[in-house]
Amino acid sequence: MKINILTLFPDMFEGPLTDSIIGKAAEKEIVKIETTNFRDFSDSKHKTVDDYPFGGGAGMLLKAQPIVDAITHIAQENPETKKRVILMDPAGKKYNQNLAEELAQEEHLVFICGHYEGYDERIKAHITDEISIGDFILTGGELSAMVIIDSVVRLLPEVLGNTLSNQTDSFSTGLLEHPQYTRPREFRGQEVPEVLLSGNHAKIAEWQDKESLRKTWIRRPDMLDKLDLTQKQKEWIQEFEVGN
Amino acid sequence: MKINILTLFPDMFEGPLTDSIIGKAAEKEIVKIETTNFRDFSDSKHKTVDDYPFGGGAGMLLKAQPIVDAITHIAQENPETKKRVILMDPAGKKYNQNLAEELAQEEHLVFICGHYEGYDERIKAHITDEISIGDFILTGGELSAMVIIDSVVRLLPEVLGNTLSNQTDSFSTGLLEHPQYTRPREFRGQEVPEVLLSGNHAKIAEWQDKESLRKTWIRRPDMLDKLDLTQKQKEWIQEFEVGN
Repeated sequence: MKINILTLFPDMFEGPLTDSIIGKAAEKEIVKIETTNFRDFSDSKHKTVDDYPFGGGAGMLLKAQPIVDAITHIAQENPETKKRVILMDPAGKKYNQNLAEELAQEEHLVFICGHYEGYDERIKAHITDEISIGDFILTGGELSAMVIIDSVVRLLPEVLGNTLSNQTDSFSTGLLEHPQYTRPREFRGQEVPEVLLSGNHAKIAEWQDKESLRKTWIRRPDMLDKLDLTQKQKEWIQEFEVGN
Repeated sequence: MKINILTLFPDMFEGPLTDSIIGKAAEKEIVKIETTNFRDFSDSKHKTVDDYPFGGGAGMLLKAQPIVDAITHIAQENPETKKRVILMDPAGKKYNQNLAEELAQEEHLVFICGHYEGYDERIKAHITDEISIGDFILTGGELSAMVIIDSVVRLLPEVLGNTLSNQTDSFSTGLLEHPQYTRPREFRGQEVPEVLLSGNHAKIAEWQDKESLRKTWIRRPDMLDKLDLTQKQKEWIQEFEVGN
């Protein structure tokens, strides 16, 4: 996979993209990530990238020209790749694991990280997706782009050592993960649940399934609406309701 | 505000916390941010931080001891601050702008960034909040913590130069932002809407209010449910419905 990031703050990406799993995927050449400072594409004398909004308003807007010319440059350098050009925008489509899985199938992702008070609407003629990672305001699109890149790259084949890990994650199974415990058996007065020490695999699996369902029922009942519950799961929910 | 981050990958934070607005807030001493590698607190000979889950399962879990001892250490170093100890967890409370505003009132935030397949449930006795930034899986809690820190720190007094900017953001007004335009008037065949060039401030404000409502109505009707609409806004929505 090829990833280009258009940003005014390329240095922000250094730690997150070089350390940890993304950096390892880049070393193994599973993904190639490049940042571009679109200020370099400004056709103004002082390399200006922002200007006042027409009609007034607080703050400055990103001009269309530097961003559009940077996108065009990337397109010319990569004439053969199929591209998704993604604008990070709080008004965009809400990012979730389904969208991560969709983007993980793509050949070439181009991220545009906004800053200041927004951007000239006319850049939208050159993008394919507007995505928001959530209902909160960040100082720029950089962290949102990192979040998407991290969640997408970890899904690429051979990035995670243990491929099983991927499949048992929350949001892939449709349920939140059950509580987990590791050694020691007693940690400062808190014990590991008995059943997990029993060696009875059927009982352990049942406990995990039930606790997974319980956590989802308590915290994210909205996730249950999307599932076809088994008879057993329906009985457990009745049990939770009585106990509550 | 004081912020501590417990992580196995402190280098990931370098770019995001030193560049851009967060770095400037730290220079101005509005916020003091420290990262702690909780591996340093492991009491095992080889500074182990993970172990196999009881009852089996894919991957490794973070042990309770290094994390709990790192939290205790921070508490001892800062005996007088009121702390929120926040675990980044996809099963946690969904992060949004209201929660950002709540955290921006706090004195001391401690973030715990998980990794691998999860953590020993028993660390939860030592935390006050579990937060998720969205329904997607990341390789660790580091990027989620950065997102929260960025959105909280920008709300602190004197961090953003233009204090007005904060108040007109989406999610603070309850509506998505209207389209915006800057120079030139014509950019490669695309014109700025006439009204924005009119100089008529009342008309411009009305256009902006209407387009803000239109965008929210199209993309995020769920946001409208939370608002007390004015008579004018109700009329505009009827107009959008007819036009649709």
